[in-house]
Amino acid sequence: MSDDLNILILSCGTRNKIVQYFKKELDGRGLVIATDCSDLAPALYEADDYYIVPRMEEEGYLDAILSICKQNNIKAILSLIDPELSFLAEHQQVFLDIGSVPIISDSDVVEMCFDKYKMFEFLTRNDFKTINSYIDKEQFYSDVEAGVIKYPVFVKPVRGSASINISKVTSKEEIELLFSRFDNLMIQEFMDGTEYGADVYTDMISKEPVAIFIKEKIKMRAGETDKSVSVKDNQLFELIKNFVKNSGFKGIIDIDIFKVNGEYYISEVNPRFGGGYPHAYESGVNVPEMIINNINGNPNDDAIGHYEDGVCMMKFNEIKILKSVENAFSK
Amino acid sequence: MSDDLNILILSCGTRNKIVQYFKKELDGRGLVIATDCSDLAPALYEADDYYIVPRMEEEGYLDAILSICKQNNIKAILSLIDPELSFLAEHQQVFLDIGSVPIISDSDVVEMCFDKYKMFEFLTRNDFKTINSYIDKEQFYSDVEAGVIKYPVFVKPVRGSASINISKVTSKEEIELLFSRFDNLMIQEFMDGTEYGADVYTDMISKEPVAIFIKEKIKMRAGETDKSVSVKDNQLFELIKNFVKNSGFKGIIDIDIFKVNGEYYISEVNPRFGGGYPHAYESGVNVPEMIINNINGNPNDDAIGHYEDGVCMMKFNEIKILKSVENAFSK
Repeated sequence: MSDDLNILILSCGTRNKIVQYFKKELDGRGLVIATDCSDLAPALYEADDYYIVPRMEEEGYLDAILSICKQNNIKAILSLIDPELSFLAEHQQVFLDIGSVPIISDSDVVEMCFDKYKMFEFLTRNDFKTINSYIDKEQFYSDVEAGVIKYPVFVKPVRGSASINISKVTSKEEIELLFSRFDNLMIQEFMDGTEYGADVYTDMISKEPVAIFIKEKIKMRAGETDKSVSVKDNQLFELIKNFVKNSGFKGIIDIDIFKVNGEYYISEVNPRFGGGYPHAYESGVNVPEMIINNINGNPNDDAIGHYEDGVCMMKFNEIKILKSVENAFSK
Repeated sequence: MSDDLNILILSCGTRNKIVQYFKKELDGRGLVIATDCSDLAPALYEADDYYIVPRMEEEGYLDAILSICKQNNIKAILSLIDPELSFLAEHQQVFLDIGSVPIISDSDVVEMCFDKYKMFEFLTRNDFKTINSYIDKEQFYSDVEAGVIKYPVFVKPVRGSASINISKVTSKEEIELLFSRFDNLMIQEFMDGTEYGADVYTDMISKEPVAIFIKEKIKMRAGETDKSVSVKDNQLFELIKNFVKNSGFKGIIDIDIFKVNGEYYISEVNPRFGGGYPHAYESGVNVPEMIINNINGNPNDDAIGHYEDGVCMMKFNEIKILKSVENAFSK
């Protein structure tokens, strides 16, 4: 089976669609193997085979994953949760050494995604419009006085995994209170505009962005896009190409963008398959196929904008049933 | 087509599974018609036919629904959203007059479900254990002093549709602050135990509870059960039967229950298909079939507990794609 294009999906969780798409695109040319630390991750049961693994923080995690890669002759490895992206990026070389290609950007780029202020500095330095952000509240106060920014603003932790909720605040008093209670906060401009998401694939061989799918977010639910509509806009395609090439992203990423008064502002990047990727796939933007091409040694042609606009995506709940799970989970 | 067992599902939203189940159970004996005020309700596109209708609050809504019932020779009508349950219950007779049976409890019972304090009083009066609740904060303070209840407690609006979030509070000061800012609040005991959900069908002809499915909630997400496991417990079956017969519920309801120190406490009732009903259906508790039997003139036999325990349900996102929706939604 040494030619099999086997793919490993780490921390698959509830991302059943991603597993389904890889299986469909492999179409027998390889297996999809999935892992999760819980046997109640429904996407496990979509895969050709699965492993219940330790939690990422636990000792021996890297060895466990390396051993799965070797045993299953894994050609590409990807993760669907944020903390593991740093892990994959850091250990890129050990995986490459055994012939498994992590579909991930380099460590410094991944880390920038998880530090909103670093991302802000990078974007500003490179002349990309972004959301005005401050870690220095005195600087913010003086910008308020100078009329550069006005209330309301958002106060949020600089690093993504929020220990406090994001707060919309309207006064200096509230900012003082939050900054006195929590460390590592930043103040961010409130963007009153339209929100977009872009799924972007940068070829692992040619290093060129080869697929971009843009959707306008119509309805959010619990922090996720619940309904969206596909959009084509050459100005935004060019902006995204520039941004991706400048910042050095590789593989699949998901970008959040705001449009205010006709101008696009880059907000955040998730260097993995975004929760809204199924919209792109069902519209013909086939990233699993592009990944398979890459691990098969073939670069992909530029297919940016190869989809129809005005296509709507609406999420709903599907369920997976698992029988006889006595003692399978702890209460 | 006068013998067709056509069913109308109002405000179907994202409840695709419910529409699918009715279609499957009808199996050609009738049509499933769905409505929603938005054409971005994915469940519309599962139905045999659908109508985009005005919002429920808008004038002419009742006439619009009655006219759909007449046009399609609807035999049963149900709604999947809370505000519309009151509407259906209030107008039961007009629907019955044209031969469409609303699968809903009577108005007083439905209203009790939306008033947490009325429900508390009903349960207490009828000797059912429930969550200790207060609308009189002075009474609460004196019970705290007497050692009847202790902090933390929840402060929440008496009526379901929350204009403020539910707050977990630990002091008199916080309670005073919340009561000074909002009307119609209640204080509710914090239940430190296991949470269960029960899907219950009370036959529309025999008025007897004929199906009960109990699941332990393993994981919640955005207020919904994300993972659950089926449970069988005769003590709880008896408690639920008693409760349902005492309170006069009809049709399909969903009950929230807590277990603390081996005792069951009834918390809330949704007099409609609960969000977790697919777990019951996939475990063999076939409420759509029971509804179809009823509108076909046949009562259902007691099937309480006819399912396996230890069956796990895990939700994940499925998507529906809708092409060419130019001008189909407003921005």
